[in-house]
Amino acid sequence: MKDFKIYEEMLDTRQYNALRSELIEQNSADIAQLIESVKVDKAVLIFRMLPKDMEAEVFAELPPDVQESLIGIFSETEIQSIVEELFLDDAVDFIEEMPAGIAKKVLATAKPETREEINRLLKYPEDSAGSIMTVEYVDLKSEMTVREAFSRIRRTGTDKETIYTCYVTDSERRLVGVVSAKRLMLAERDEIIGDIMDDTNLITAETLEDRELVAHKVNKYDLLSIPVVDMENRLVGIITIDDIADVIEEEVTEDFQKMAAILPSDKPYLKTHPVLLAKNRVVWLFVLMAAAMITGGIIGKYEEAMLALPLLGTFIPMLMDTGGNSGSQSATMVIRGMALMEITPRDFFKVVWKEMRTGLLVGLGLSVVNFVRVWITFRGHSEYSEDIIRISATVSFTLFFTVVVANLVGGILPIIAKKCKIDPAVMAAPLITTIVDALSLIVFFALATALLL
Amino acid sequence: MKDFKIYEEMLDTRQYNALRSELIEQNSADIAQLIESVKVDKAVLIFRMLPKDMEAEVFAELPPDVQESLIGIFSETEIQSIVEELFLDDAVDFIEEMPAGIAKKVLATAKPETREEINRLLKYPEDSAGSIMTVEYVDLKSEMTVREAFSRIRRTGTDKETIYTCYVTDSERRLVGVVSAKRLMLAERDEIIGDIMDDTNLITAETLEDRELVAHKVNKYDLLSIPVVDMENRLVGIITIDDIADVIEEEVTEDFQKMAAILPSDKPYLKTHPVLLAKNRVVWLFVLMAAAMITGGIIGKYEEAMLALPLLGTFIPMLMDTGGNSGSQSATMVIRGMALMEITPRDFFKVVWKEMRTGLLVGLGLSVVNFVRVWITFRGHSEYSEDIIRISATVSFTLFFTVVVANLVGGILPIIAKKCKIDPAVMAAPLITTIVDALSLIVFFALATALLL
Repeated sequence: MKDFKIYEEMLDTRQYNALRSELIEQNSADIAQLIESVKVDKAVLIFRMLPKDMEAEVFAELPPDVQESLIGIFSETEIQSIVEELFLDDAVDFIEEMPAGIAKKVLATAKPETREEINRLLKYPEDSAGSIMTVEYVDLKSEMTVREAFSRIRRTGTDKETIYTCYVTDSERRLVGVVSAKRLMLAERDEIIGDIMDDTNLITAETLEDRELVAHKVNKYDLLSIPVVDMENRLVGIITIDDIADVIEEEVTEDFQKMAAILPSDKPYLKTHPVLLAKNRVVWLFVLMAAAMITGGIIGKYEEAMLALPLLGTFIPMLMDTGGNSGSQSATMVIRGMALMEITPRDFFKVVWKEMRTGLLVGLGLSVVNFVRVWITFRGHSEYSEDIIRISATVSFTLFFTVVVANLVGGILPIIAKKCKIDPAVMAAPLITTIVDALSLIVFFALATALLL
Repeated sequence: MKDFKIYEEMLDTRQYNALRSELIEQNSADIAQLIESVKVDKAVLIFRMLPKDMEAEVFAELPPDVQESLIGIFSETEIQSIVEELFLDDAVDFIEEMPAGIAKKVLATAKPETREEINRLLKYPEDSAGSIMTVEYVDLKSEMTVREAFSRIRRTGTDKETIYTCYVTDSERRLVGVVSAKRLMLAERDEIIGDIMDDTNLITAETLEDRELVAHKVNKYDLLSIPVVDMENRLVGIITIDDIADVIEEEVTEDFQKMAAILPSDKPYLKTHPVLLAKNRVVWLFVLMAAAMITGGIIGKYEEAMLALPLLGTFIPMLMDTGGNSGSQSATMVIRGMALMEITPRDFFKVVWKEMRTGLLVGLGLSVVNFVRVWITFRGHSEYSEDIIRISATVSFTLFFTVVVANLVGGILPIIAKKCKIDPAVMAAPLITTIVDALSLIVFFALATALLL
């Protein structure tokens, strides 16, 4: 579905039957995009054209603001039918995003059993495995034959979020094994599930486990779904890979935002109001502005040096920018490495040692080039000609020092944050820049005072 | 497998049988981690203990440096057996990572058919769909019955990378439909594949399509695998979701690195030599250092202003840092939005309008606070008391201007880059900081000269 225009046209010219038969051929993600792109009255019309079994699929793909406006128009029967059709995790997602009033209305129209299930899932803390799991999985018993398993899957499979991994539970709902649909399809019909299932080293998530850690497990073990168990190892739900993909996308976006000193928000940029954008950005800017004033104070303290040799001021942007950039390079590498679990706090000294050597190399390279460049620039100026070597040396040594310190601070701070259970991503560029700036200017003016004045 | 120590101990005390029966219970990802954590001679011992069918699985999970040292020790027969057992996409991945000499040796030991297949896949450009696809998929014919399809899957399924989506081709290998294992399992045995398959709006990738776009499709349509077709719509391979997850992880890491002005590398941080780390970091630092010298030149031009009122210098870090931080906030939001395909170049004016309003709000907030803070700080200093309002106004207006410009530049540059087919991620913080710094200082000194001197 590339061009929505023709569908809108069909709607405007009331070719409802033609449009309807076009729509049922489309993917639900595309229909959702079409509905999102038109005005709400047309959206409702299109939505009502969909066959029953597509309604929930399309609805789950819609962004919360469109869901909200549709719900505002739908009748109670329509709302009920959609909520019943939705997979439970999608229903929970949707209700979580709605304003309290609408969430209440939706829950009130749901059937009692569904409402109870939804309410149970709504109680799990945000970002926990429980909050993103669904209860629609295939459960088997270990004494079943493959034939019985198949007939169970055929009987109940349509409404399951996945049938490709089946979970084997005992009489107390404890998870005892896992068997894939592949294994079932390749097995003989009268084999016993207990004999063909995997029952050692099962990979599971706990209801309260951080969803980011769960996503890491799913990726590491290449799973299509992961079972979620409670503290008594009872199976309470599963999380499928499509939801894991969403978790990863959200967590990465959050990391990008934190690293740019923005309060994280999962609302798409184009749908976020400038007031909210501004609010999310201004908090850290205030903090960092205050910190930068301290750096400014350092320059103020060395007013005399600046008066004696105003040339010094021209090196400040270069020193500050290079320090900030170096520090943010190291911090980015370490923060990303920790997000991928390639680096853990135990690697502290490895990181220090690596950043030190990297910093020395980079610092050396930059400062040699800088020495030559300052020397070439000012050798023609008679006023500086006798000081030229000392000026070059001061700037270059400060640069060298700045880069080495920036690398170390950028590498170390995220690990310390992690150790203190603070998100390492907030220790990124902006904060490190401010620290490195201050150190760099102190060294610069101290050296300049000693060597040049 | 939490603690590798006991396995190493079992190895050291030659409890080979016990260790072997422990190992076969483990997940291949964990065994790979164990092998990675021990010295190479032990690694070989452990590897040789694995049953044939686990060898390839574990080998595919190993990082390239460990694969390389193992290959150096393995006999030709061992290498051949591993290459034959590997899924083709894993074999290609592995050979691509090896130094030329070893790649050649591995290819030479492979069986002719395998070698030919591998060589064909090696020809696809890096980052293309072709380069990450595998040819081990289930293909069905539309005239088959479900029963025949099942027996085909049971006959050939073990060696397929996934059996959960089956691809239906015609006599010329053109893709005509897709049928999921779920659909097959829920269907009657004598239904015809052609009747139950999906044959409209098939989601496919082209061999030369960028793998990032393919990953986006797989996520958007919640697929478990995507068929890859050539220009004549002939099915040539599939890409499974686990490989898509790897692509996304690599692309995100690359974005993080580019945004921190680092040349991207997919080697894990802890395994990268400081010389390579330094090389990847120093290139952009040179460029940005040169640019910052231009900014420094601006300060140099206003030497007289600085001499007349040295206080001006103390505001420079605050202006530079806040400008850099604001710009990087906007750039991050827009770059991430584009990576998620939420923002396209067509949204240019929407972004401009949003960033302008956000910038005005943030700028207003920061500059009011700054005005008050400067006024409070300096009202006690007799030397500034008569100028205090004008000083506060100069700094605050520059700050306001800086933030608005930073927001606009940060929002616009990534979109322009995208439009010019440059990766927007390189237009991130460092570059924007440099541009904003220069503009900010020019305005600052111009205002100061006009108002204060």
